[in-house]
Amino acid sequence: MVRSIGKLVVIGVGLIGGSFALAMKRAGLVSQVVGVGRSAENLQRAIELGVIDQASHDPALAVQHADLVLVATPVGQMGRVFDAIAPVLPAQAIVSDAGSTKGDVAALMRQHLPKHLGYCVPAHPIAGSDRSGAVAAQYGLFEQRRVVLTPLADTQPDAVAAISHWWQASGATVFTMRPDEHDAVFASVSHLPHLLAFSYVDMIRQKADAERCFDFAATGFRDFTRIAGSHPEMWRDISLANRDALLADLHAYQAQLAQLTQWVEAGDGEALEQMFEQAREARTRWHQGFGKN
Amino acid sequence: MVRSIGKLVVIGVGLIGGSFALAMKRAGLVSQVVGVGRSAENLQRAIELGVIDQASHDPALAVQHADLVLVATPVGQMGRVFDAIAPVLPAQAIVSDAGSTKGDVAALMRQHLPKHLGYCVPAHPIAGSDRSGAVAAQYGLFEQRRVVLTPLADTQPDAVAAISHWWQASGATVFTMRPDEHDAVFASVSHLPHLLAFSYVDMIRQKADAERCFDFAATGFRDFTRIAGSHPEMWRDISLANRDALLADLHAYQAQLAQLTQWVEAGDGEALEQMFEQAREARTRWHQGFGKN
Repeated sequence: MVRSIGKLVVIGVGLIGGSFALAMKRAGLVSQVVGVGRSAENLQRAIELGVIDQASHDPALAVQHADLVLVATPVGQMGRVFDAIAPVLPAQAIVSDAGSTKGDVAALMRQHLPKHLGYCVPAHPIAGSDRSGAVAAQYGLFEQRRVVLTPLADTQPDAVAAISHWWQASGATVFTMRPDEHDAVFASVSHLPHLLAFSYVDMIRQKADAERCFDFAATGFRDFTRIAGSHPEMWRDISLANRDALLADLHAYQAQLAQLTQWVEAGDGEALEQMFEQAREARTRWHQGFGKN
Repeated sequence: MVRSIGKLVVIGVGLIGGSFALAMKRAGLVSQVVGVGRSAENLQRAIELGVIDQASHDPALAVQHADLVLVATPVGQMGRVFDAIAPVLPAQAIVSDAGSTKGDVAALMRQHLPKHLGYCVPAHPIAGSDRSGAVAAQYGLFEQRRVVLTPLADTQPDAVAAISHWWQASGATVFTMRPDEHDAVFASVSHLPHLLAFSYVDMIRQKADAERCFDFAATGFRDFTRIAGSHPEMWRDISLANRDALLADLHAYQAQLAQLTQWVEAGDGEALEQMFEQAREARTRWHQGFGKN
């Protein structure tokens, strides 16, 4: 059963929530978009930009008669949002999200929306950016991007089919996996590198010759540290939410660094070159395929 | 005394050596360019592309009547090159290089060119790229780039002035510092991040779910790992050459990671957010100034 969305409620009208609303509008798949948020200024801007049709500060009021509720707030706010909408949610309204971690969102849904789990579909649209707010919303953001759905044991297949259809209509390719599989993969390819980049910049800024270091930092430094420009609150939430998978990767990386340090100490050029070569080969192979599917 | 270059000998005709030759030609500052290398194919290509005028496999023959000898080989080959040219070097030929480490090049010059130190000027043009060979040589590579000179105690001011003038004519801004200062700065802003990126990719490729990880790696991963596509042999040489500064930074980074891991383990969101915030602020401030001087 694939349907169009009579009423879409986007809670958290930023890059992801706003761009999803725009995508549904362009696809002719939505009749009405209500945006919910704390900042009146951001919501006003979202109306002016045509991202939403109506604004509200009250999630409970907004979700009445909703067909789809997309919770695109930081994960740290989702518990409160689910709590607020739980008593008034229409029986068949699909509830989805856009969080970067999925085990915790699944747990929050089980905790706060226990009677609604058949229509809960945790989701992760992979379209990060350092831009935020309604002004960041853009047409086409999800084209050639990936969306990972992590349905709960109770989620109805119809609800998964509907949300898959909508994300596909935005131009994305949709994948399905278990929440814990999702979190292990994203700890490795996204969360760990963010923490490594933040730590690296924080170490450099504390050096006695920090000013001279920054003076001579070049394009390699620029690319390596780009993700250290990401949103601190969001990354705090992710670090806490994906604690177990992240700790496993942090320990593995520390072991890797200890080995590397030993090679440098011992002047073992052969071991170093072999490791660099294997890393380069894997990275080159990855890069050749990147963006092609 | 600023002079033009009658005969320029480039030993190692790749991205840096080749682009320097092109820059001198465009500036009208050189009469003849001789390229020296091991690969006949690369030298032939360099002649066809107008990067060099003549090719040679023999450094000792090539440097006769040279005014400037630019040794743009990997640092690991420089000792042999200096040895080969030492007996035949014209008395006032300036010898410079393009290595990413300077303490070791200074030491190699002192060891292999002890009678020529007045005309030795170790240098580091900061224009990295993952492209290599004569085909990578390009006009304008050094425009708005930086070149660090690390003269020896014995280097004649005239030789420093001449090489400064030539690099400035290529469009670069020239800085001078001590070899050990240079190596500490570049360990921090270049060598350490390369080693961290290589180690990270090597860790991911060894994971049980490596294939799925690479499948979902996105733009953050792409930028963070770009430098892991760098040349293994060159980075082996740099790791060995800049061992002491690199070890100091590796230890500092490991301490930083141990602290981070403790915060994640303890679920200390406040400490994490504060560190992320300080890193983001430092990175943003750096990025706003980057490329402006």
